Amino acid sequence: MFEALLGNGLILKKIIESIKELVTEVNFEVTSEAISLQAMDASHVALVVLVLRASEFEEYRCDRPQTLGVSITNLAKLLKIAGNDDSIILRAEDEAHVLTLVFTGKNNEKMCEFNLNLLTLDSEHLGIPEQEYSAEVTMSSSEFSRICRELTQVTDTLNLSVDKESVKFAVSGDIGAGSITMRANNSDKSEEKLILNVSDKVSMAFALRYLNLFNKASSLSDEVVVSLSPEVPVVLKFAFNLGELKYFLAPKIAEDA
Amino acid sequence: MFEALLGNGLILKKIIESIKELVTEVNFEVTSEAISLQAMDASHVALVVLVLRASEFEEYRCDRPQTLGVSITNLAKLLKIAGNDDSIILRAEDEAHVLTLVFTGKNNEKMCEFNLNLLTLDSEHLGIPEQEYSAEVTMSSSEFSRICRELTQVTDTLNLSVDKESVKFAVSGDIGAGSITMRANNSDKSEEKLILNVSDKVSMAFALRYLNLFNKASSLSDEVVVSLSPEVPVVLKFAFNLGELKYFLAPKIAEDA
Amino acid sequence: MFEALLGNGLILKKIIESIKELVTEVNFEVTSEAISLQAMDASHVALVVLVLRASEFEEYRCDRPQTLGVSITNLAKLLKIAGNDDSIILRAEDEAHVLTLVFTGKNNEKMCEFNLNLLTLDSEHLGIPEQEYSAEVTMSSSEFSRICRELTQVTDTLNLSVDKESVKFAVSGDIGAGSITMRANNSDKSEEKLILNVSDKVSMAFALRYLNLFNKASSLSDEVVVSLSPEVPVVLKFAFNLGELKYFLAPKIAEDA
Repeated sequence: MFEALLGNGLILKKIIESIKELVTEVNFEVTSEAISLQAMDASHVALVVLVLRASEFEEYRCDRPQTLGVSITNLAKLLKIAGNDDSIILRAEDEAHVLTLVFTGKNNEKMCEFNLNLLTLDSEHLGIPEQEYSAEVTMSSSEFSRICRELTQVTDTLNLSVDKESVKFAVSGDIGAGSITMRANNSDKSEEKLILNVSDKVSMAFALRYLNLFNKASSLSDEVVVSLSPEVPVVLKFAFNLGELKYFLAPKIAEDA
Repeated sequence: MFEALLGNGLILKKIIESIKELVTEVNFEVTSEAISLQAMDASHVALVVLVLRASEFEEYRCDRPQTLGVSITNLAKLLKIAGNDDSIILRAEDEAHVLTLVFTGKNNEKMCEFNLNLLTLDSEHLGIPEQEYSAEVTMSSSEFSRICRELTQVTDTLNLSVDKESVKFAVSGDIGAGSITMRANNSDKSEEKLILNVSDKVSMAFALRYLNLFNKASSLSDEVVVSLSPEVPVVLKFAFNLGELKYFLAPKIAEDA
Repeated sequence: MFEALLGNGLILKKIIESIKELVTEVNFEVTSEAISLQAMDASHVALVVLVLRASEFEEYRCDRPQTLGVSITNLAKLLKIAGNDDSIILRAEDEAHVLTLVFTGKNNEKMCEFNLNLLTLDSEHLGIPEQEYSAEVTMSSSEFSRICRELTQVTDTLNLSVDKESVKFAVSGDIGAGSITMRANNSDKSEEKLILNVSDKVSMAFALRYLNLFNKASSLSDEVVVSLSPEVPVVLKFAFNLGELKYFLAPKIAEDA
């Protein structure tokens, strides 16, 4: 028996909205410690890693570890039925064929219960090596999102360069070239703040299309932490009360960096 | 000569918006008592019945009964020109070829007058038998609309079951199954309130696509009254100051009810 | 060297949005007096004339006149990157191959600089003869925009008639016919006000599609001045602090005017 009660169901709605365009069918691993998932996108360029800590749920019970194969597309449809203020219960019997979702709103006269059919999916649990990164950028997730979205106007590849003083988001395309540079600062305004933790400067290129997909998670956290090292995938980490959502993206072979 | 003055033109705009996706060309019957229409949708599954009482208009004159064949599509276009605060005059000469619409706003320096070409349409006035229903559900029109819209995420058929205590909106599809159950209550909040008037419990299935079309009328009335009896069309009634709009929909042969 | 600093960059964003659906590649003429452009739309029916006066910029320097061939489509993309509160610097070296745009926001830690590739375009500077017009209509640009947009519901040609007392916007199509008439008045409400300066009454027909495109400039100015004379193009003038934007449109041969 697995059962977890989430007082603030909105966060689960946001999490699923943040990953549903990247991954369509995934295995959730539920244990007594956490609900977690790891999944590559269809083109095997990006990796999504989600951990929701058991201790952060209002109620949590997991008698034995289970793998729940879920259609994210269908889960997103069911979660649309939950109100933003609803609490959400997730429940699965041992060797379950369905994941039960119960939505409870402030209106006690209304009960919503849905059973989502589970899927049997190949497992592809990837060992992600712990890694020291050359540069770590902590900034406003909405500002990072805005910059990536705007630069997509110009071209499809972002050249990201970080040194001890600043981050440079550069683009170059048929229409011209340009850059947005931000200097490290400890502003009181979370929008402007930029913390750099850099051992070696790095310059790498990434597909903006993926970064824009990852940035849907900016609704989950005010801050994003971007970790970079030459020739390894960049990590975007969005942390929130319940756990964290990380995206890994392989760099493009930078043409002029 | 027919002439009717409506101080609050917005309601007419909403009425036409509520039916224009179901019926495209209809006969309006104008008499000294009322403006009314009855029309089947193109697939002959749903029936729209509208009555606007003469006594509720600011001014109303109808020298002799007339049938006015109107393109709802085109009437909707013309009504878009009226401001939400405008009063609207409808006018037709005897044996008219056009329906004249005059929009008058707060700005007295501006006059809008349009003539809508009338059509000659086959008349298909249906005698709708007065009927006692097994169950009558009175609830918030916006809540009913929200539930239908959300369940459309799961599948295209709604199983509606009503007994003396509760209404159950159930769905079952490829992705899974589930239900929203509301218990009868007399809450002060109009959103939550649910009045049931049930002689025999009923369970019937309907196409959500049509219910969603009917629910456009939730802008006309805070409440919807849903009347059900086995094997006869369900009725959704939206009542408002000026009259009422009713939709009839034949049940689907319920697969598992 | 050409360099111009605009404290309020939003106006430049609005100007380019107002013309980008009409003209895609244009020559900007920069002189010590002004930045200006003249361009026909692709179908050679409409003419756009823009003048931005040097004296209205916060800083302005133009060592010698230059012609800068610009893709409006691409310029619009780059301007989307500028925040609404940003100041904008435009800069071009002598015999420039790029136009440099620098966006500066309130956040001093952030710098945005883009180079837009310039184009070599055929020049087609048209002498527009100064002209006395039979009728000049000054009215709310948003009201004019609303009327044109709404009448597009009915048909694609606007019959515009002006005499000393009123303006009549008439349409006639398959669905019917109608008109909106506004009387000259000096209302305190800018929305309602209508100033007529008429020597001879005129009645002319225009393609609503173009008027709707011109009306995007209603975001630049509360007022539009419409100048009419028989058989010559109508002029819509939108004036603002920085200069003015004028659109010229040849009349249709009026079918029934």
